[in-house]
Amino acid sequence: MQRLNEIMKKIKKIDYSLETETQKRLDNLTKPQGSLGRLEELAKRMVAITRNPNPAVTNKVIFTMAGDHGVTEEGVSAYPKEVTPQMVYNFIKGGAGINVLARHVGARVVIVDMGVACDLEEHSSLVIKKVNYGTKNMTKGPAMSREESIKSIENGMDIFEKEFLKGIDIVGTGDMGIGNTTPSSAITSVITGKPVEDVTGRGTGIDDAALSNKIAIIKKAIGMNSPDAKDAIDVLSKIGGFEIGGLTGIILAAAVRKVPVVLDGFISGAAALIAYALVPEVKDYMIAAHCSVEMGHGAALDHIGLRPLLDLNLRLGEGTGAALGMSIVEASVKILTEMATFKSAAVSQKG
Amino acid sequence: MQRLNEIMKKIKKIDYSLETETQKRLDNLTKPQGSLGRLEELAKRMVAITRNPNPAVTNKVIFTMAGDHGVTEEGVSAYPKEVTPQMVYNFIKGGAGINVLARHVGARVVIVDMGVACDLEEHSSLVIKKVNYGTKNMTKGPAMSREESIKSIENGMDIFEKEFLKGIDIVGTGDMGIGNTTPSSAITSVITGKPVEDVTGRGTGIDDAALSNKIAIIKKAIGMNSPDAKDAIDVLSKIGGFEIGGLTGIILAAAVRKVPVVLDGFISGAAALIAYALVPEVKDYMIAAHCSVEMGHGAALDHIGLRPLLDLNLRLGEGTGAALGMSIVEASVKILTEMATFKSAAVSQKG
Repeated sequence: MQRLNEIMKKIKKIDYSLETETQKRLDNLTKPQGSLGRLEELAKRMVAITRNPNPAVTNKVIFTMAGDHGVTEEGVSAYPKEVTPQMVYNFIKGGAGINVLARHVGARVVIVDMGVACDLEEHSSLVIKKVNYGTKNMTKGPAMSREESIKSIENGMDIFEKEFLKGIDIVGTGDMGIGNTTPSSAITSVITGKPVEDVTGRGTGIDDAALSNKIAIIKKAIGMNSPDAKDAIDVLSKIGGFEIGGLTGIILAAAVRKVPVVLDGFISGAAALIAYALVPEVKDYMIAAHCSVEMGHGAALDHIGLRPLLDLNLRLGEGTGAALGMSIVEASVKILTEMATFKSAAVSQKG
Repeated sequence: MQRLNEIMKKIKKIDYSLETETQKRLDNLTKPQGSLGRLEELAKRMVAITRNPNPAVTNKVIFTMAGDHGVTEEGVSAYPKEVTPQMVYNFIKGGAGINVLARHVGARVVIVDMGVACDLEEHSSLVIKKVNYGTKNMTKGPAMSREESIKSIENGMDIFEKEFLKGIDIVGTGDMGIGNTTPSSAITSVITGKPVEDVTGRGTGIDDAALSNKIAIIKKAIGMNSPDAKDAIDVLSKIGGFEIGGLTGIILAAAVRKVPVVLDGFISGAAALIAYALVPEVKDYMIAAHCSVEMGHGAALDHIGLRPLLDLNLRLGEGTGAALGMSIVEASVKILTEMATFKSAAVSQKG
């Protein structure tokens, strides 16, 4: 925790005056002022996050973190938990949704075992940072120990730092873990204060009866563990997941390095809630790629104060929405850095 | 008109059964069914439009059509009309917003003079298909003759056909023309039946007084010309514009060739309203890239029955939103054609 505390202290608010300066530059480009709407907002934010007037968006990295969840014993997911390792192998082979969309936007995917319930075969594309073999069933006690909770965040930070040495201009978050909308709903409910019913959805596709059961299970887990909403580490340990902690670590480490973080869907939103509870300043470094179909996601984004870029009814996770969002961010920076000015193009200004 | 009539007859509804077939393929890919939301819808639509199970999205072409408007005499725009040719030169030099975003998504831009009010210097990147030197002031009579209206559409078709020979997999529409939100609002009001006030916005950025004047001018133009809402050619000729007619031609010609059309903002929406009024079946070939800040755009999309992909507060035109939309469409096709199946990846299905 000491190390985590030290790192968190390094996260500072961005310099908003850079946004004002950048708007002046945008207003000199050959377009009506403000006519590129959110692209202009993104370009300004990118300058303010990176403290670079011409931010690079070349090295785009998506961290797709996998973990298993003991609570799947309670029948909260439509898919069997063996799908978690199967999908990790699919990521390695390049056949999953995130591989396709990352290739489309020119991002590289870093696949991480944060806590899959079995040993995975070693592979050059797989980073093994396993905290444990899946979390425990949170209806029967805490999902993990406090030490494991801290370790999951620190492991995420370590992974970021290692990849940062290879070059990272922008980060996307992604997840894989059968059952992981269940801890994400639990975290969202506890941190935002919203009723469990209002932040719990169908995940990969459960029916009405299974949804009722899922809500009851989440309530039971919260009741059993009494997570302290004021102590994000406590929340993560009692009702969280290893991949969620790992993503929290990615978000925090990126902010320390002044690297913008493009958040994917609901599980990334839960990780963002933990990060925001630990260090509110980290919000400035977050860009919400999209709004998931999972109903709790909107509540998480509202709590932090983020407005999603895309609304494409996505609910896959893996970082798929983050990949598409990164491309929009990249476009915004190119507007800033590649467009002609009224003067250079000899175009008349507003009359 | 005979030629236009013959071409319009060739536009057929798409084969919806191909969407059903494609959904089955999507359901075999390694993701929960339907979890890629609108990307799945787009992939299905692309198959149904192209009648190709694995549609190509390699040759992406954006037609950015320019024209001037006599109604600018009435002070409806924040910018002087000399900006139209200045921006055409900016397009040629690659410094405009559309150039940046087209490069970002790998599209080529075809710049067309449909009716700029002066002679433009010839350039290998500029297609000159001028119908006339700007439209006439529509508050004093029709913006153009019926023959010019038909010619603007046919010129658009000719340009599409010429570029189609070079290869086009998907088309984006774009516009440039100082004052062109004014005819677009007029067309939208007449065709959708909405009051002028409800479909008229600030264009490139006029103040409250100028907005009131713009609304009065549009009402005057409609009152003076009495366009027949049942006769789209009449609407286009009396209160339209050359670039709007050209884009109508692009949309119709693309549908004949089974090429999907990604619509940009409000001016493209007005062109789409004309095309839809002429041939309702053309709707199936249209994909709305985004919802513009211009308030009439939503009414135009609702009238046709299109749901925009992006909501980024754009209001630049030129095809900028279409460029970003095309990239989302391309991503959707890659999902269909590049993802692994449950079987090929040895991933367990829903329990």
